[in-house]
This record gives sequence, structure tokens and C-alpha cells, in this order.
Amino acid sequence: MQSTAYGAPINVKGWVRTHRSSKAVDFIALNDGSTIKNIQIVVSPDACQVSCATGAAPGAASGGPQCGDSVVASEALKLITTGACISVVGTLVESPAAGQASEIQADTIEIYGTCASDYPMQKKGQSFEVMRKNAHLRLRTNTFGAVMRIRHNMAIAIHQYFHDHGFFYFHTPLITASDAEGAGQMFQVTTKNLYRLEKDEQGHIIYDDDFFGKMTSLTVSGQLEGELGATALGAIYTFGPTFRAENSNTPRHLAEFWMIEPEVAFIDLNDLMDLEEDFIKYCVRWALDNCKDDLEFLNKMIDKTLIQRLQGVVDTEFVRLPYTKGIEILEQAVRDGHKFEFPVSWGMDLASEHERYLVEEHFRKPVIMTDYPRDIKAFYMKLNPEAPASASGPLCGDRVAAPSGSSSAAPSLGYDSCLAPGPTVQGTDVLFPQIGEIIGGSVREENYDKLLSEITRRNIPMKDMWWYLDTRRYGTCPHGGFGLGFERLILFVTGMQNIRDVIPFPRTPKNADF
Amino acid sequence: MQSTAYGAPINVKGWVRTHRSSKAVDFIALNDGSTIKNIQIVVSPDACQVSCATGAAPGAASGGPQCGDSVVASEALKLITTGACISVVGTLVESPAAGQASEIQADTIEIYGTCASDYPMQKKGQSFEVMRKNAHLRLRTNTFGAVMRIRHNMAIAIHQYFHDHGFFYFHTPLITASDAEGAGQMFQVTTKNLYRLEKDEQGHIIYDDDFFGKMTSLTVSGQLEGELGATALGAIYTFGPTFRAENSNTPRHLAEFWMIEPEVAFIDLNDLMDLEEDFIKYCVRWALDNCKDDLEFLNKMIDKTLIQRLQGVVDTEFVRLPYTKGIEILEQAVRDGHKFEFPVSWGMDLASEHERYLVEEHFRKPVIMTDYPRDIKAFYMKLNPEAPASASGPLCGDRVAAPSGSSSAAPSLGYDSCLAPGPTVQGTDVLFPQIGEIIGGSVREENYDKLLSEITRRNIPMKDMWWYLDTRRYGTCPHGGFGLGFERLILFVTGMQNIRDVIPFPRTPKNADF
Repeated sequence: MQSTAYGAPINVKGWVRTHRSSKAVDFIALNDGSTIKNIQIVVSPDACQVSCATGAAPGAASGGPQCGDSVVASEALKLITTGACISVVGTLVESPAAGQASEIQADTIEIYGTCASDYPMQKKGQSFEVMRKNAHLRLRTNTFGAVMRIRHNMAIAIHQYFHDHGFFYFHTPLITASDAEGAGQMFQVTTKNLYRLEKDEQGHIIYDDDFFGKMTSLTVSGQLEGELGATALGAIYTFGPTFRAENSNTPRHLAEFWMIEPEVAFIDLNDLMDLEEDFIKYCVRWALDNCKDDLEFLNKMIDKTLIQRLQGVVDTEFVRLPYTKGIEILEQAVRDGHKFEFPVSWGMDLASEHERYLVEEHFRKPVIMTDYPRDIKAFYMKLNPEAPASASGPLCGDRVAAPSGSSSAAPSLGYDSCLAPGPTVQGTDVLFPQIGEIIGGSVREENYDKLLSEITRRNIPMKDMWWYLDTRRYGTCPHGGFGLGFERLILFVTGMQNIRDVIPFPRTPKNADF
Repeated sequence: MQSTAYGAPINVKGWVRTHRSSKAVDFIALNDGSTIKNIQIVVSPDACQVSCATGAAPGAASGGPQCGDSVVASEALKLITTGACISVVGTLVESPAAGQASEIQADTIEIYGTCASDYPMQKKGQSFEVMRKNAHLRLRTNTFGAVMRIRHNMAIAIHQYFHDHGFFYFHTPLITASDAEGAGQMFQVTTKNLYRLEKDEQGHIIYDDDFFGKMTSLTVSGQLEGELGATALGAIYTFGPTFRAENSNTPRHLAEFWMIEPEVAFIDLNDLMDLEEDFIKYCVRWALDNCKDDLEFLNKMIDKTLIQRLQGVVDTEFVRLPYTKGIEILEQAVRDGHKFEFPVSWGMDLASEHERYLVEEHFRKPVIMTDYPRDIKAFYMKLNPEAPASASGPLCGDRVAAPSGSSSAAPSLGYDSCLAPGPTVQGTDVLFPQIGEIIGGSVREENYDKLLSEITRRNIPMKDMWWYLDTRRYGTCPHGGFGLGFERLILFVTGMQNIRDVIPFPRTPKNADF
């Protein structure tokens, strides 16, 4: 709403959150969606003209209240119920009421739209489940208004960060004919008439007449194409929708979600970890600086430790921990009597309980884990040198002794050994309290021969890989990047518990409403 | 590349554009993708160490040049061909050469990657068609580097504009179960096994076991969901991929493209036209202010009138023209002897030739056309009042006499009549020289009864519309918005002729490469 001096005429438009009548005056809490804070409208029925815009109310067929020329002002006031939309002309005055600086003394009110009596968002304290079924209306509530404004701010922060740091926003395709990334099950995209599927002599469906002349799917990642951008423009980032056709009915999975994938030429693992930490702190700091009212609301209503946790991330130096050391810590915990559901051993993919132990119990701060076993990570990650037979000191990428920008971090771990018992790659995941993995990244294998041998070892079809391999044939360069699930970030920054509540219209198994 | 004082040591990394040897020194033009401008590296072979990074060259199998420990410096220099990637340590010095302020005197060069001799981007003057087949490498050329940097800048400008104006970035879903927008043919999205399609007793394919439990497609527009956002948050914009399964092999169509769709509560047609004009001028001005080097390159190589045309848009007040008056102008042109391929009559959808006549010949400036016949526009556009039988003066929305913010524009048209011979709606398209329609927008019908009757009249299935209609039942409000095809904007701002050349990896019929 506009900022205006006391005593000045003002026109505000918005939706009615509450309307209560006392003896002499009515109070209307009005909100236009731009802020969590309502403006109070004070109406003296005798001194305020109330009119209806043409067709402000749905017709009798829809069961809404009527709003026609025949309605007198005092009657019309009764049409201003929760959910109605009005325009108020009046005077901005200092408010005698606690908790608000100003209010509006109404001279005229025009009703743009009355609200049918079956409005589902009328009552306070709706369950999130009921709200999900009314995702088209939940945006008008305090909680979802706050979440969506924060979501907007995080998107702006992301663009601002990368623009300021010389990254170019790069649009990778969503429809793809390759399945090389292998990150999950894919949705098929087709224009074929499914009632008339022709097959060839081997019984395979013929795709020559499909829109793209071959079988296509929705992408699970823009990274491989992002590398094409980075090895040309230097530094790029994607920020777009990504798809996983996994039948996962959890509070952490969406079939359609937004992902940010920066990719940078001439970067090594230390620089990449610096980038990850700096980037995510920037986003969280942006929220603290720009979303104060909404965060205070969520801190009060959703999660009482939210702001404290956000401030903690901004103020903390992240731990940088080679996987092999992480396993040592977990094994020590087991020896000390800690019970995990899944057994701990080198080579395993960490379960959520292991990540949480490291982040929430052992270090009590965000952890950047690096140098994972090759076989639990993707084919494109850069292989670390293996320890020679005679070696006894640290290796794991040799970043243990002197983590970039945090010379004190390594000694504080209290672990000296790092020699990995098997091949490791330069992966780097950021693990957050409550959320778990919020970022997954790596330095990419820039060596043509090594990359080719890994592609071959994993039986990845070469037909999908020629263009990717070309970047290693024509002026290859060291490079790396990471992926951030946007909704994971929003979960962390808002304190919301279910990923379906941080995107306007969630896509999940059996649900594509709105 | 970093900015450094003359005489200071400097390290630059990038790809070799050219390498030429004279008697005593070698000159390497190096580019890191951040700018159109190369930096010149001056190499005195006797005074410069050249080494190879481990595995800088692809193995013998790929036919690339070799780069091993055995290579001596003078031989290694020969490996630095067009397309190779190198890191140079040296001294920044003032350049004696024309056309560049500074150059680098190289002390050491490390070859990150040699370039195989079949590098397709070696030669200058490749056709755009050849480049499209090498879309993974064309990004390294001057033209595509410039286009992609401008594309990035336009995206940033768009986010900046809306953020500054209080709009929230709003992510509407891409996978949709509704076809209500009706804007074009759709791609089906499915996880069904096409080899085992079960049908019900009526012979219909059963979708209960598809991922979403029903038939789903890729969206053609986020507008309807965007209206849900605007009627809750006040003002939103989308910026995301959009899909059309049209078999259009033209330089103006993509199957997958990016679209921007702002939607605003409490806006009327005049405000909407102001927004369209202000927004697009902001974007073009951003390009002029922030992409000077790239625009100058494109102005020189692609389109000699580019910068002049961009400046023209920024400096010009757009014409605001009711459709009915536009038809009058076209009919007058026919009477004056102008030949159109398609006949002109009220109620027709303007063809490209008609738009171009108005924009490029009659007005010679951008035109915002409004108040179209109802039957050539979408169901959701706000209906104008119809002329009473006795009327003889202007109507067409009554905006003719006083166009917002441009009181002089209307008289200059020289047309007084506007009474439309049939129902019109408050659509507003922006027509640009060379591009044609760059923006399509409208005020939306906020009246429940009128909207319902239009939906019924057009036989749009109600099962898809209940949530959309709900916004008119629960506190309806005047609102409107528009859609801008991002690639159309990039075409205009870069002067490129084919839409496949302004997106990294175009999706068109029979083409989903990379």
C-alpha cells in the first residue's frame, strides 16, 4: 500500500481479512497481498458511502450475496465479509490501537467483489492439508502469502548474486532426447496418437512421426548442457523447472520442482566450496534483510527457532569434511554406543540419519562433504589421484591440511588420516540441519580419456554423449558446478515442513490440480 | 577478465580465438566468454615457458594433438590452436596496437586443453545453419556469445523491473491436466508403458495408473494460474518455459520457449498499456545501457540499423489504436491503392502484412492495438459495453478521446469514429516493427456471470474451470496482464533473424538435439 502522510487522502484496494462491528464504527482489516501487515479501515456507517461495482457479486446461481443498485449503505456494509474485495477512499490517520501505526478513516467504499458464503479460507487455523486442496485460494492466507513473498525474494537474490558475480543466466532445454544424467525416472513427452501406435518388425514403437522424430522426455537436470555454456561463456547458471517421475509421496519430493545449477570454468574444488558457501549465505542473508515481517510471522506461527537458525547459517563457517573422515566419525560414534538404523562402512551412501548425526549432533553446523567414493556418484565427477602403495599420509584430494579460507577448520576436526580405501571423486555436497543435502556439486572430469573410460565402464550409451565429450576434445578446461533444489532452500528459509507448501501448485503422484 | 594496472602481474584463462606467429613473437587472441573483446597475448617463444596440464589433450583415439611431458616449449606453442584452452601468467602492458588499450606479455602458458583438428568452429563466416548443427560449440563464437550475454541481460532486466515495481515472481506449473487456455496444440506427458495401454469398455485409454492419475500435458500458458497469484498477492509475473506442439517450421516458432506473463490486480486497460510500454522500454534501455559492446558488434555484423531501431523504441511514444480504427486505416489504404494479400474487413484477425503496414508504413512506430472483436480473442477477456442503438459517437472502450499519458496521440490519428459493429473485448497487443506482435495482453473479465456465459458459449469444459471461476466468486477484482515471448524480445534486441539462434538449444519439429 502507498506510503502517505497523516491527514492525506488515500485510496487502498484489497481483500477483507476480517470485518467486525462495534456500536458506532466498523473495523475492516484489509490486505492487498504485498505485505503480511493488514491496514485497518475504520468505518462510521453514517459518514461513509458504500457502493457496488457493476456485477460485484456473482449471480444468484452461485449462491453469493447480492449487490445491486437497490442496496442501501448500511445494508451494503454487511456484504463486506471475509474474502470480499473492496476499494476504500479515506484519510490516513494515526492509530490509537496497539500494534499498528496508522489506520484509514473511510469516506467511501466501493465493493469490487463480494465473497460467496462457502469461501473455504474463512476460518482461521485451517490444516495445511485442507489448504492444499484449495491451493488456488490459500495464497490469500497469511502463511502462504509470507511463503510466496519469501520465495520471490529468494529467486531475486539468486539472480542478483549470479549477475553480480559475472554468471550468465542460461536456459537449458526441458524436453530432451537423452537420458545420460540418469538422475531418476523420466516423464515421456509425445504428440503421438496413443490409439494408433505403429510398431516396426521387431515390435518397437516407431517414433519417426513423433514431434521430434524420436522418443523424448522431460529433463532431470540441465547440468550437461550447462557445461556447454560454462565452457563457452565462462560462468553460467540455470534456474528452471526440473522433473522426476518418482512415485515418492514424501514431504521432501515433488515431480516438478525448480533447480538452480551454476557451472563455472577454471574452478577447483576449494573455489567451488567457497562459491557454495558464499552463495547460500548470501541468499539467507537476503531473506533476513528483506523479508523481516514475513520471517517474524513464520517464526511466531510455524517455527520458533527459524530466525535463530537462519542467523546461525550466516554467522557460521561451514565445516569441510572429506567423506572418508566423515565415515571415521560415524564409526567412532558407533563405537561410542550411538545406534544407527543402517550400518556404517566406507563406500556406503550416507543415509539421512548419518547426515543428521554429523550436522546436528557432531558439528552442530552446516557441513560440506567432499571426496566421495566414485561408485556412489555420477559418471562426470573428477577422479582424485589414488594413493601410491607406499603412501601413509593424507590424500582425499589433499585438501585436508589447508581448507581454503578456513585454516583453522581442519585441525579442529581432530582427525589426521584421510587415505581413502578406494577411488574417490571430487563431489561436494552441502548438508544442512533439518534439510539434509541442500546442494550437490562436483568438479567435473575434464580429461577426455578418463571421462570416456568412465562412460564406457558404466555402459552409458555413446549416442547421447558425443556433444558432451566434444567439450573435452576441443579446448577442455577444469570446471565444476553444483545444483540447488529451490524448494529445499525455501523449506529451510521459511521453516515450513512440507515441500508441497512452498510451491504454488505442487505436482505429486496423482495430483496435477490447478 | 580482471582489471589490473599496467605493469602488474596477471593471470588470464580462456579459449584461443586466433594464434599467429611473426618472426620474433606470437600473438594469441584469447577470450574467456565474459565479453566480446579478446585480450591479446604476446609471446616471445624464448622468454615464455609453455607446459601442458595433465591430460590436456585427448588421447590418440580422438585424433587430437599430443601434449605430454616430452613436448618442448617451442613445440608446445604449436599446440595452441584456435579452440585450445590456456592459462597465461604475464604482465599487463599498454598495447601499441590499434583497437585495444592493453595486452599481456606472457611469462608462462599452461595448456589446459588442446583442440582437435576437426574443430567445427575454426573457420570464420560459418553459416548459421552449420552453427545450429553445432549448437554445443557455437556458443564460443562472437555472434552467439553476444546473443547469449544479451539474453542474460534481458532476463535480469525483467526480474529487476518487476521486483522494483512490487511484482512477485510466481512459478506456475508446467505439467497441467487442463486445456482451458486453448492457445495451441499440446505435448502429452506420461509415465505409462506405451506397450501396455489398457482401455475401458468404451475403448478409452485408462489413465488411472498414469503418474498423475489422469491425462496430462505441457502447459501453453501460465496465465490462468497467474490470475490466482495476482488476486492474492496483488501483482505477480511468471517467467518460465512454455510449450506449443505446432508443426511450424518458421524462423518465428519454437516448440519450447520462455514466456513472461505479468498479472496485476486493480488495473484497467489504460494502466495496462502504460505498463506494457514502460516495461518494454525499460528492457530495451537496459540493453543499450548494459550491452554496448555486444550491440555494437551485432550492429556491425548482423544488422546495421539495430542500435538506431532500439534507440527509436526508447525515444518514441507508442501509438494506441483501437482495432476498429486500425481497420478503418487499412480500408483507407486499400481505397488508396495499397494491395494486401488478404482482404480487410472488421472482425478479421490481422495478418502480418496488415500489422506491418500499420507499424512500418502508416505510423512508423510501435502500436498498441486494443479493443478487438470478441470472437478473435480468448474467452477471458473483458467485454466492452456495446453501443446503444442511438449512439453515434466514439465507444471502443471510450479510451479514444483521452489515451492515458498521451493526450496528443489521439488527435494525431485523424480518426473520430470508433463505434464497433460488433462486440469487442479489452485486449491489448503491442506490435513492433519487424517482429509483429511482441506482447499480447488484456483486462480480464472479472464479472462471474459474464465469464460463465462466455465459457458456456464456447463450450469450454467446466471440469477445468472451477478454480478459475472461484476467483470471481470470492472477492473478484478488476485485473489484467500480458504475455511476452522472451525469444521475440531477444530477436528484436539482437537483430537476429531466426528464433533458433537466440536460444541455446532450440526445440523444433524433428529436432531435440543436445
